[in-house]
Amino acid sequence: MVSGKVVGTIVSTRKVDTLVGSKFLEVRLFRNGEDTDEYLIAIDTVGAGIGEKVLITTGSGARLALDDPKTPTDAVIVGIIDETL
Amino acid sequence: MVSGKVVGTIVSTRKVDTLVGSKFLEVRLFRNGEDTDEYLIAIDTVGAGIGEKVLITTGSGARLALDDPKTPTDAVIVGIIDETL
Amino acid sequence: MVSGKVVGTIVSTRKVDTLVGSKFLEVRLFRNGEDTDEYLIAIDTVGAGIGEKVLITTGSGARLALDDPKTPTDAVIVGIIDETL
Amino acid sequence: MVSGKVVGTIVSTRKVDTLVGSKFLEVRLFRNGEDTDEYLIAIDTVGAGIGEKVLITTGSGARLALDDPKTPTDAVIVGIIDETL
Amino acid sequence: MVSGKVVGTIVSTRKVDTLVGSKFLEVRLFRNGEDTDEYLIAIDTVGAGIGEKVLITTGSGARLALDDPKTPTDAVIVGIIDETL
Repeated sequence: MVSGKVVGTIVSTRKVDTLVGSKFLEVRLFRNGEDTDEYLIAIDTVGAGIGEKVLITTGSGARLALDDPKTPTDAVIVGIIDETL
Repeated sequence: MVSGKVVGTIVSTRKVDTLVGSKFLEVRLFRNGEDTDEYLIAIDTVGAGIGEKVLITTGSGARLALDDPKTPTDAVIVGIIDETL
Repeated sequence: MVSGKVVGTIVSTRKVDTLVGSKFLEVRLFRNGEDTDEYLIAIDTVGAGIGEKVLITTGSGARLALDDPKTPTDAVIVGIIDETL
Repeated sequence: MVSGKVVGTIVSTRKVDTLVGSKFLEVRLFRNGEDTDEYLIAIDTVGAGIGEKVLITTGSGARLALDDPKTPTDAVIVGIIDETL
Repeated sequence: MVSGKVVGTIVSTRKVDTLVGSKFLEVRLFRNGEDTDEYLIAIDTVGAGIGEKVLITTGSGARLALDDPKTPTDAVIVGIIDETL
């Protein structure tokens, strides 16, 4: 799993039917809590907002966090990070 | 998921039967909305054209966006990006 | 599979229901036994502590190490490394 | 999906039973049609020869191009590339 | 699929039950037959020894080479490489 900070929202009007209603957030990934130059786009499930630190699951496991596990995605925000101890 | 700009069409006459009829587009990936030197080839599902900004799902999730989820691919264009907020 | 050293614990209060009770550890990855600047976050299954060397399975195989193989994760600590011969 | 040029054949006599009869080709990957220093090994399904440009599917989707989808591989050559428009 | 040379054995006493009995080998990956600085850890199925050149399947396909396809791994040595033509 990876962590990062939400930096934007992707707006897509024309998309596959099974993605209608999904919120796509752009996330700048962390490396040991520090910003990197890597980004990914993930579907939000926890109401994450711009600037929040999030935990992301990628690959087939990501879909298991969604109501419909057949949603065509590969990355889902599965938690808000409070802190790293 | 990743985003990028469609830069070309891959033409393949001799291919596996289950890919006949698929449109293969070459996409130059973005990093936070800026061009990178990374590219991938994805099957189009939304009628994307050269120069359009697209949203791509990779891995097993990609196939879930296709009529036949047993299509042997690992990347599908699932949306056209209007803007990033 | 990859190996690394546990360097921290990720605390997330607001998360998807199926991750409640999971322990998220940040791991600094090794390359041939040496520290790298790559990190990942994995669910612990073996009681790993800070500073311990661990073996990690990623992707869909990771979930097979958990009691609930539908847990939405992509990385699990599957063993403590004693030594490399 | 990725593209590249076939540069060699991997010969393996001692291998798992379910790979007997598979042809393993080494492919030098392209980035936007240009050679890179990245390589992968893929099972051939289309009769690709040394020097030919090929289209490759990776991950679980690769196996869907094979007669036996339980073949233990992660990369399959699914087409010969004629040109990029 | 990737290739490399076996450089070590990972010893793990405390691990998940379904990995008991598995042999974990550290492999230094090749790029076109030359050593790289990339490594991975894979379960052996073909009796590979230190210094041997091996062929590795990663991801969900790796498990298909094992007696128990539910083994929680993401990389398996599926063949010994004799030569590259």
